Amino acid sequence: MRLMRNAAATARREETLDPEDWATLKALSHRIVDDSVAYLRDIHERPSWRPMPEDVKAFFTGPMPRKPQELDRIYRDVTEKLMPYPMGNNHPRFWSWYMGAGNYTGALGDFLAAIQGSNLGGGNHAAALLDQQVVNWCKEIVGFPVSASGTLTNGGSEANLLALTVARNVKAGVDIREHGIAAIEKPLRFYASDQVHSCHRKAVETLGLGNRALRRIPTNKDFTIDITALRQAIAKDRAKGFKPACLIATAGTVNTGAIDDLHALADLAQAEDLWFHVDGCIGALMAIAPENAYRVSGLERAQSLAFDPHKGLHAPFEAGCVLFKNAAAHRAAFAVTPEYLETMPRGLAAGAWLHEYGLQTSRGFRALKIWLALREHGIEKFGRLIDQAIAQAQYLSRRIAQEPRLELLSPATINILCFRYRPAQAKTADALKGLNIEIMLRLQEQGIATLSDTTINGQHCLRVAISNHRTRTSDLDLLLSELLRVGAELTS
Amino acid sequence: MRLMRNAAATARREETLDPEDWATLKALSHRIVDDSVAYLRDIHERPSWRPMPEDVKAFFTGPMPRKPQELDRIYRDVTEKLMPYPMGNNHPRFWSWYMGAGNYTGALGDFLAAIQGSNLGGGNHAAALLDQQVVNWCKEIVGFPVSASGTLTNGGSEANLLALTVARNVKAGVDIREHGIAAIEKPLRFYASDQVHSCHRKAVETLGLGNRALRRIPTNKDFTIDITALRQAIAKDRAKGFKPACLIATAGTVNTGAIDDLHALADLAQAEDLWFHVDGCIGALMAIAPENAYRVSGLERAQSLAFDPHKGLHAPFEAGCVLFKNAAAHRAAFAVTPEYLETMPRGLAAGAWLHEYGLQTSRGFRALKIWLALREHGIEKFGRLIDQAIAQAQYLSRRIAQEPRLELLSPATINILCFRYRPAQAKTADALKGLNIEIMLRLQEQGIATLSDTTINGQHCLRVAISNHRTRTSDLDLLLSELLRVGAELTS
Ligand SMILES: Cc1ncc(COP(=O)(O)O)c(C=O)c1O
Ligand SMILES: Cc1ncc(COP(=O)(O)O)c(C=O)c1O
Repeated sequence: MRLMRNAAATARREETLDPEDWATLKALSHRIVDDSVAYLRDIHERPSWRPMPEDVKAFFTGPMPRKPQELDRIYRDVTEKLMPYPMGNNHPRFWSWYMGAGNYTGALGDFLAAIQGSNLGGGNHAAALLDQQVVNWCKEIVGFPVSASGTLTNGGSEANLLALTVARNVKAGVDIREHGIAAIEKPLRFYASDQVHSCHRKAVETLGLGNRALRRIPTNKDFTIDITALRQAIAKDRAKGFKPACLIATAGTVNTGAIDDLHALADLAQAEDLWFHVDGCIGALMAIAPENAYRVSGLERAQSLAFDPHKGLHAPFEAGCVLFKNAAAHRAAFAVTPEYLETMPRGLAAGAWLHEYGLQTSRGFRALKIWLALREHGIEKFGRLIDQAIAQAQYLSRRIAQEPRLELLSPATINILCFRYRPAQAKTADALKGLNIEIMLRLQEQGIATLSDTTINGQHCLRVAISNHRTRTSDLDLLLSELLRVGAELTS
Repeated sequence: MRLMRNAAATARREETLDPEDWATLKALSHRIVDDSVAYLRDIHERPSWRPMPEDVKAFFTGPMPRKPQELDRIYRDVTEKLMPYPMGNNHPRFWSWYMGAGNYTGALGDFLAAIQGSNLGGGNHAAALLDQQVVNWCKEIVGFPVSASGTLTNGGSEANLLALTVARNVKAGVDIREHGIAAIEKPLRFYASDQVHSCHRKAVETLGLGNRALRRIPTNKDFTIDITALRQAIAKDRAKGFKPACLIATAGTVNTGAIDDLHALADLAQAEDLWFHVDGCIGALMAIAPENAYRVSGLERAQSLAFDPHKGLHAPFEAGCVLFKNAAAHRAAFAVTPEYLETMPRGLAAGAWLHEYGLQTSRGFRALKIWLALREHGIEKFGRLIDQAIAQAQYLSRRIAQEPRLELLSPATINILCFRYRPAQAKTADALKGLNIEIMLRLQEQGIATLSDTTINGQHCLRVAISNHRTRTSDLDLLLSELLRVGAELTS
């Protein structure tokens, strides 16, 4: 009786994060929807990027809030301090690095995923089935068999890390999970081109193999891996007592979009008994692009494949994916319960444990945004969009080649190209670099376009990567005319 | 001229993922908002979990969509096939494992993050500043100095993995990033109690140290680490030529909520020159709970600390956090560019590169949902909610202790307790286990409550973890009466 009275007393003052007044929250949500629709609908009219005024920067140094604040007031800060100053990767004239441009339906997916709230660590519920369905669709997209396994990750870096983990464990020749790397007799060696993405370096470092274990093989003129040099490196390592273990092909390098010769590498990996991994973060989705699919033929021969729905499928961050031909090896690298352990016959714990296929325990429901957009548009449209981006980059590449003040350093084979502004008067390499950086910064600051820069063959250059479903050819025309204007201003 | 005509021709058929008709999309979004508000507002009236009918399961085996479908139709599938069958962790009577219950504002945060679209790999934009602000607030919450560094992760598992990576690298005594584990002279040893979360096993395996490198130290009766045994294990390892490197304390074990003696461990780590890491995924946020903060005193002495905003702050998945006292060591473990490398003086690339503090390259904007909810409620309320959950668990614990048909195996020190149904008639251990599992499954299937089960001291038991801002004491009363009813039905 006393306890029950305590309970009642407790109940009276019980708190929750749910609002007392759902109607106000609903009204605010409607405003957020209207503002968000306008935000994306009118994005062509906004600058591609804007520097933050000092007061905006200072705003984000405020102390931790101790007392509640009105949500309306907080949302006003969002509209004034946050939304006007994005990275800009959803803007039609954003062509830096290599990202997706997001999509409105994907944002609804993230909202609904958070409302539904399920933990994708696994279990017997609909979100877990939908997650598995998306993984199955991913297999179909890249031509992997249904017997393959896979998991959605936070991005390409994690996807590659998981793949290299499985490769390491399979090739170690010892129970490496139990005994660690120290138990390996011959040090493992992994191979990739010198254009390989930095996440592979982080991966071999994390895995305890060390940066040295990742051999960077020189590339041909077209930035694809030099297979003769690769063969020699493997032979040399074997002779020295190393164990060549894994070959990482890149289907679409971040610098120039180069695609390694996948069939030749698959053959070589087979002949040399190497794990064959393909980093397809940039290029794998070309498999669904009618005009360009031939470029990534051979992809389907990989033992593991990493790719990035938050790039080519424009899923809002984050969404990566890794697939494995050998489902048992995949699970064996990450599961902490043996395969035969009985799960529950019924109830919530009767489902698959998805956390046994990667490093996370709790997992978000990132499948939903991919699922919604794939159903809304159909996969064929994503294929056409990839063809379109490549055609746009090739158009820009041709126009640059025809423009005397511009020098094309790496033409668009796919949707990435490198070039620089080069005035008639001769300039030193340093002066050219300074000039091109200044052009890049002014284009950003004036809200015209966001490019990035890189160095290829020792030459500094500007880089355009078109992985953006909002880009129109007219945006590229604008880029060219504005770039020439700014260049002329700076050199006159 | 010819090129320009081509461009115009291309422009006419250029596609995008943006809808032609934003108004229809807006109307649908308003419906989604209304449904979502109702979904959470009325959650007390819904079952805590429901099994999926066969047609729902079959629905998620459909093939990849090739052609577009109406978004209205797709959303109907969401409302009929997905939303009614969640894991249920946002339900007031979900007490399985250890999760947060989400919150509506957090879902708005995920929506706005996806609309704004920024990549939190870094750069000079508002989302990157907001992310850093949330990390700074996290330091304040757990009593870390402003000079500490940290990063938001996908959850506690990644947070712990990053911490153990830094510990490994700092303690290796060689340039482990370059040379790998094979270059270490004396094999490293990590220490934790036998109650340590399985993600630490995955971490040492991933890091190439091997499961054996993680010594599981026996626990006291209260499931805290036995410090005498720990001391002996360290001495023995040293004598054998191993290098004791890292001590992992758990502040809130997943089985019973046990909190290791943090001050004693901090002292020991100092004396033995070990990296001192605290896994505070369950307990660290108690630091803000007025009535229970004393339990995690010593937390602030950790060199690294992992905790989980998607647990104690009820951020929708995913949101973890890891903090480091030694900011330079943190960066040195993950950055692929040297500190002195000049970034751009202006423009988008003039900001901090947040991907240099973890394994991801692209990163989502998970900070926003945390930021919104912290401002909406103020941190003090989150502290009170933690006190409330602990008080609720202690109330349930007392009621179970008073109930003759129930046996309390691990009382609620914090918000986790273990017990079993034990009818007067003696039963074998196997029969008791079967009976309790059946009770657990029926409570799930009847939509009453979601508990999980575990084994402590070799005894199977049911487990209630209250980390749920929607739970009311009346929900616990309902659990007890229904549990006794189902138990009686099964044993009569
Ligand atoms: C070839 C390649 N691999 C891996 C990655 C890393 O992907 P993420 O940023 O999704 O981690 C990238 C990112 O641009 C990439 O271009
Ligand atoms: C003590 C402890 N550490 C780590 C984790 C892993 O956290 P996450 O599920 O966020 O990866 C958990 C999860 O319950 C936990 O209880």
